[in-house]
Amino acid sequence: MNKVQIASQLEISRVVLGIWRLLDWNMTDQQLLTYLKQSIEAGVTTFDHADIYGDYECEAGFGKALQLEPSLRSQMQLITKCGIKLKSSKFPDRRVKYYDYSKEYIIQQAEQSLKNLKTDYIDVLLLHRPSPFFNPAEVAAAFDELKTSGKVNHLGVSNFTPVQFESLQSYLNEPLVTNQIEISPAQLEHFQNGNLNYLIEKRVSPMAWSPLAGGSLLQPKNEKSKNIHDAIARVAMQIEETDLSKVIYAWTLMHPSHIIPVIGTGKIERLKTAVAALETTMSLEQWFDIYTASLGTEVA
Amino acid sequence: MNKVQIASQLEISRVVLGIWRLLDWNMTDQQLLTYLKQSIEAGVTTFDHADIYGDYECEAGFGKALQLEPSLRSQMQLITKCGIKLKSSKFPDRRVKYYDYSKEYIIQQAEQSLKNLKTDYIDVLLLHRPSPFFNPAEVAAAFDELKTSGKVNHLGVSNFTPVQFESLQSYLNEPLVTNQIEISPAQLEHFQNGNLNYLIEKRVSPMAWSPLAGGSLLQPKNEKSKNIHDAIARVAMQIEETDLSKVIYAWTLMHPSHIIPVIGTGKIERLKTAVAALETTMSLEQWFDIYTASLGTEVA
Amino acid sequence: MNKVQIASQLEISRVVLGIWRLLDWNMTDQQLLTYLKQSIEAGVTTFDHADIYGDYECEAGFGKALQLEPSLRSQMQLITKCGIKLKSSKFPDRRVKYYDYSKEYIIQQAEQSLKNLKTDYIDVLLLHRPSPFFNPAEVAAAFDELKTSGKVNHLGVSNFTPVQFESLQSYLNEPLVTNQIEISPAQLEHFQNGNLNYLIEKRVSPMAWSPLAGGSLLQPKNEKSKNIHDAIARVAMQIEETDLSKVIYAWTLMHPSHIIPVIGTGKIERLKTAVAALETTMSLEQWFDIYTASLGTEVA
Repeated sequence: MNKVQIASQLEISRVVLGIWRLLDWNMTDQQLLTYLKQSIEAGVTTFDHADIYGDYECEAGFGKALQLEPSLRSQMQLITKCGIKLKSSKFPDRRVKYYDYSKEYIIQQAEQSLKNLKTDYIDVLLLHRPSPFFNPAEVAAAFDELKTSGKVNHLGVSNFTPVQFESLQSYLNEPLVTNQIEISPAQLEHFQNGNLNYLIEKRVSPMAWSPLAGGSLLQPKNEKSKNIHDAIARVAMQIEETDLSKVIYAWTLMHPSHIIPVIGTGKIERLKTAVAALETTMSLEQWFDIYTASLGTEVA
Repeated sequence: MNKVQIASQLEISRVVLGIWRLLDWNMTDQQLLTYLKQSIEAGVTTFDHADIYGDYECEAGFGKALQLEPSLRSQMQLITKCGIKLKSSKFPDRRVKYYDYSKEYIIQQAEQSLKNLKTDYIDVLLLHRPSPFFNPAEVAAAFDELKTSGKVNHLGVSNFTPVQFESLQSYLNEPLVTNQIEISPAQLEHFQNGNLNYLIEKRVSPMAWSPLAGGSLLQPKNEKSKNIHDAIARVAMQIEETDLSKVIYAWTLMHPSHIIPVIGTGKIERLKTAVAALETTMSLEQWFDIYTASLGTEVA
Repeated sequence: MNKVQIASQLEISRVVLGIWRLLDWNMTDQQLLTYLKQSIEAGVTTFDHADIYGDYECEAGFGKALQLEPSLRSQMQLITKCGIKLKSSKFPDRRVKYYDYSKEYIIQQAEQSLKNLKTDYIDVLLLHRPSPFFNPAEVAAAFDELKTSGKVNHLGVSNFTPVQFESLQSYLNEPLVTNQIEISPAQLEHFQNGNLNYLIEKRVSPMAWSPLAGGSLLQPKNEKSKNIHDAIARVAMQIEETDLSKVIYAWTLMHPSHIIPVIGTGKIERLKTAVAALETTMSLEQWFDIYTASLGTEVA
């Protein structure tokens, strides 16, 4: 399968497996290990985590499976995120959900992720969300320390705007490697607000979270979703494809910004569908048929 | 009349004649030729086209007139646009209006424009609208080929935001020469969203489409237009000018960003009015009287 | 008290005294002189003016006090602003409030400020508001002349967006030294629109006007203000602080962009409260408690 080179020393897979719903998959450690091997076999070698997924438990679940066969690590690229502090029964004193990008907290969470994931390095650490209280100099100091110690190899962001990206970048010695943002036929925001233009300018490949819009496009519950669904179904028929999710993935994958979808499935067939979508082609007119169905009007 | 140097090798006229309503002018080829000569005589030497104007027919109508006296070409600057694919009886298979900035399509349309316009070069090719599916590297490749072959001398854009402009520019070997945007006393968007600030920063002269707001300011049909009309009439009286359209053109022409209005008229008197507006002066207070009438409130 | 170096040759105080309400203070020249000395004694050595404050009268009121003891000038940094033309009984012919950033008007107003303030130099001249009719080349020419003649040492802006800041900066030979914007727990705009990110990127310290939101947070009159007030009171109790305004100042002062609050008080106790807030600390969670109370929802 295609790889994407997102840094001079890092290739990730063109489709990424998202681990945020791991607890819902109800797998034993052995089952998860098997799944991860199937994923790698299918060409999906990059796994997307966050410290907070599953109320702070997903990373550790993944680590337990990896521990059963540690040699698998060398075939993987691990992404995780930090910065959000959830209200959680694990932190009974926390009254407010907030963001923490202090040097101390970034390092603490990265080290915790290493422990959880049973690994000694993270390929890419993402700052989970932009914060109104954000000191890029401190982030840079934290990353320098993590990089020097070999604990984190690359830094990226998630849900950042261009000005936020640019501001942080100006404090760093090496390029941010990605911006993970929400992109799907139901979420056109970043096609419209300049974020994808900006990432194309900076030669940075975006990652897309929720590329299926949480399933809402396959089982539409409102007028807008219904219209998008119908356009997807129309294109599917035209290109003789029966699996609508494959059409959605193809719609994302063909975009010139090289969008890397994060697929949150526990089923290997669905993951293979996403991979197969790399071979699915639709015309530019078909791409816009889906786009304008979501826009609710034809383009200007 | 004033010229504007928009590239090291290109001067255009300070007022541009827009050809988008050519079919409404109901001119014979000979009448159009006469009109073009009158326009040039009046100092308006630059003509603004798009492949799609008049359901893809305006360029060819212009070309037929030019063919009657090909030597006129050397006194003209021709601008045209590409990228929009209209739903049209000429393209019965097209189901969706969309944008196409593939290398192949840009070159195809530029070459078609050359045939239509009966010329062997286009002075400025504009990308008609920003697209959510946009690959600046491909645009750059198309332009390089068109430039090398002498078919297109300069590239510009229309309706782009600063981030879209900047993203495309980063892939090009030479500067974009303009951004043609909607500007009029009824359309203040680009005074407010940073686009004019950005173009001033980049030393790029904007072109203004619909500078009279489609006539809505001369015959106002709603409260807002009525208020703007009244302010224009007030200023007209103060500066002892009876032609309100001349006041509107002057309002546009005096802006420090060097706005180049595109006038879509088929009447030489009206075109001359726009040219004469270059000599019309109003005070800064009068400029703001019109601006704030449109804003609906005084400035902060 | 802390100083902030906002230019290679200029330090201002971490808290600034705003003079816009001078006429409400009802002080004699001697009382004002005493107040200014108390302010300097407290570490607040920077005074923020505008030509238009007090319907064009505040600068002169300040100047009269300063004239009583001219040697005080060397311990002060004076900031003033220009560009807004008010409707005023002093300008009976003016029909419209508008902005004027012509070279002539900038120089005229700066020179008038010198006369009013009874000083021979202004430390920082701010452009009061962005204007839809704005020629940065002309601003640059005006500032060059004022700088060369020793009348104005530094240039800054107020209420500018990033693109407006960047556009002006591109025409200047030296860095803009600040952007004075509205920031308070009731006004989160610049935390959200990229302006603070941009200023952090450019290593420019923002100044904050209306840091107490005009007192509306201390005596809340609507639901939103009530919620913010309650969060401030909650944090005050947690950090064992009884003065809510001190908590608000601390909230502003701790932000990593080095926000410099402009305090518009005529009471030395209140000014000292703002200075004392530099020693007040709250946790990041408490900062977000106030932020999210204003946001009306927890962070994403």
